[in-house]
Amino acid sequence: MIPDRPLRSATAFAPASIGNVAAGFDVLGHAMDAVGDLVTVTRSVERGVRIVSVDGIVGDLPGDPAANTATAGLLRMVDDLELSFGFEVAIRKGIPLGSGMGGSASSAVAGVVAASAVLDVPLSVDEQFTYAMVGEAVASGAMHGDNVAPILLGGLRLVRAIDPPDIVRVPVPAGIRCVLVHPMLRLDTRTARAVLPRQIPLSLHVRQSAELAGLVAGCFAGDVALIGRALADHVVEPARAPLVPGFHAVQAAARGAGALGCSLSGAGPSLFAWCDGDAMAAAVRAAMTAAFRAAGVESEAWISPVDCPGARIVETISG
Amino acid sequence: MIPDRPLRSATAFAPASIGNVAAGFDVLGHAMDAVGDLVTVTRSVERGVRIVSVDGIVGDLPGDPAANTATAGLLRMVDDLELSFGFEVAIRKGIPLGSGMGGSASSAVAGVVAASAVLDVPLSVDEQFTYAMVGEAVASGAMHGDNVAPILLGGLRLVRAIDPPDIVRVPVPAGIRCVLVHPMLRLDTRTARAVLPRQIPLSLHVRQSAELAGLVAGCFAGDVALIGRALADHVVEPARAPLVPGFHAVQAAARGAGALGCSLSGAGPSLFAWCDGDAMAAAVRAAMTAAFRAAGVESEAWISPVDCPGARIVETISG
Repeated sequence: MIPDRPLRSATAFAPASIGNVAAGFDVLGHAMDAVGDLVTVTRSVERGVRIVSVDGIVGDLPGDPAANTATAGLLRMVDDLELSFGFEVAIRKGIPLGSGMGGSASSAVAGVVAASAVLDVPLSVDEQFTYAMVGEAVASGAMHGDNVAPILLGGLRLVRAIDPPDIVRVPVPAGIRCVLVHPMLRLDTRTARAVLPRQIPLSLHVRQSAELAGLVAGCFAGDVALIGRALADHVVEPARAPLVPGFHAVQAAARGAGALGCSLSGAGPSLFAWCDGDAMAAAVRAAMTAAFRAAGVESEAWISPVDCPGARIVETISG
Repeated sequence: MIPDRPLRSATAFAPASIGNVAAGFDVLGHAMDAVGDLVTVTRSVERGVRIVSVDGIVGDLPGDPAANTATAGLLRMVDDLELSFGFEVAIRKGIPLGSGMGGSASSAVAGVVAASAVLDVPLSVDEQFTYAMVGEAVASGAMHGDNVAPILLGGLRLVRAIDPPDIVRVPVPAGIRCVLVHPMLRLDTRTARAVLPRQIPLSLHVRQSAELAGLVAGCFAGDVALIGRALADHVVEPARAPLVPGFHAVQAAARGAGALGCSLSGAGPSLFAWCDGDAMAAAVRAAMTAAFRAAGVESEAWISPVDCPGARIVETISG
C-alpha cells in the first residue's frame, strides 16, 4: 500500500525476467520473482536527476544519468512533465549484468515505478512502460519490450506493439515453474544481437510463428503438453548457442530431467527451463547446474512461478 | 448419425475455409460453413479408385484419380491399408476453383471423410488429416494445413505442425462473423505463391509473429478489440494484393463499414473480413461487393460464424 501523496521517497523492487521464452523472440517474456533490483527515488528541491549510490552485486554502472538504465527514463520524465523538482536515485543491483536476466530492464522499471510513486499524480501503466523502455534502450540498443512488460506487470506477457503499447497478459497454469541458471560468464547484449540473422527464410518464419501461437494457446488452454511441444526456438537459439559454453549439454540435461522446454534466457548466457511443478523444477535445477559444472562453468540458479508478481513499491518515506 | 457399418456409400459435405486469416500465414485457418463441396464414396468390388462423376459449379477437374484432390488421398489410403475393395467417387463442387476459398482442401477432406465412413474401421482424426493433406498437396504444391485442419474439424484452427499433426483449436467469440467475398476472377495458387518473398527481415518476423500471437490471445480471452488490432498481415498481403484488382478499395470499404479486419482469403483473389455481429457483417458484405463493383469486378459473397462446424457425413447408403 502506498500512503497518501506526496511521498518524499519510494523504493521499488523489480524482478528479473526471461525474455523471448524460446518461442517469442523480442515479444514474449515473463517475470522471475526470485531475484531483482531495488531503486530508491527521492524528491529533491534541485531539478534534474542524480545518481547518489550504486551498490549490490554490481558496482561499475554508469554514474551519468543519461547513460544509466535506471535513470534515463527519469530524465525524459522530468522533461516531459516539466517537473518543478528533481530525483535523487539510489540503485541496488541484485541482477548480474550481461546475464540475460533482464537486469537493465529491471533497473529501468524499478526507477520509473519508484519515481511514479513520488509524483503528485502517478503515471499510467502505459506511461510507466514507455519511460522504462527509454531506460532499457540505453542498455540493449534495441526497442523491444519483452523484458520491460513482464517486469512491470508480472506473469507472462506478449508485447504485440510498443507504440502505443499493446501488452497482452497470457495466463499460465499455476503449477508451471521456471528454473533460471546463470553461468558465471558475461555476455553483452549487443554482442548477442550481432550474431542474429538479418533475414530468415519465409518457411522458418511460418514454423516459428506457429510455435509462438501454440505456446500462447497452450497457456490459455492449460494444455501443458502443448506448452512443452511449442517451447522451441528455431530462429535465434541456433545463432546464439555457440556463445554459451556447455549450452547443448545443459539443455539436454534439463530435458533429461523432464523440463517442458529449455532455451536461452533473453540474449543469454543464462538458460531457463519451464517445469511442471516444484519437484520437477528442483530436479531440473540440479541437472542444469551439474551439466554446467561438467562443462567447467560454475553457475547460480533460481526457481520462480511463471505466474508471479511484477514490480512493486516495497518502502516509502512520507513527505 | 452414421448407421452400423459397413456402409455401401457415404456422402460428406466439407465447408470452404479461410486460410492464413491475415495473421497466420500457412498455419491458421477457419471453416466457412455457408458453402462447400460434396463427395460421395461408394465401395466397389473392383480395387483402386475411380472418379465416376464431377458436377456442380466446376466441370473441368482432372479425371485421373492421382491428379484430383478429392481422390489422391484415397489412392494412398488404398495402398496403405491394403484394402480388398475399391472406391467409386462422385464429386459435386460448390467452391469455385482458384478462388482462395480452400476448394481443393474441401474436396480432399470430403473425399477422405466419406471414404473413412465406408471403411470397416474408420480412420482416426490424425489419419483423416494426413490423407486429406495428400489430396491438398496435389493442388497447392505446398504442404500446409491451414485449410485442411479447419475444414476437417471446424472453427478456427492453428496447425502447429503437420507431421505428426498438431492441430490446436482456438475458441472464437460466438458473435464473430466472417464475410467472404469472391470476385469473378481466378488466381492459381501456384501463381500466388510465386510472388511470395523467400526471405523476410528478422524484424518483420518479430512483428508478424506478435500479430499471430495477439490474435490467438484475443480469441481465447474474448477480447474483440485485440482481435481487431491483431488481424493484420505485414508479410504476404503486400506481395499478393497487386494480383487482385480493387484490393485496397475493397479492404478500405470493409474497414469503413466497421470490420475488425480484412485481408486475402488464402492465396486470394477472395477477400474475407471478420465482423462483430450480424448487423456489421451485413453492412461489410454490402460495402465490399459495392467496392468490387466500383472497381469493375462482379462478386459473390457469403457470411458464416467463424466458430462453425467442419466436414460431416450428410447421406449414407447401407451395405
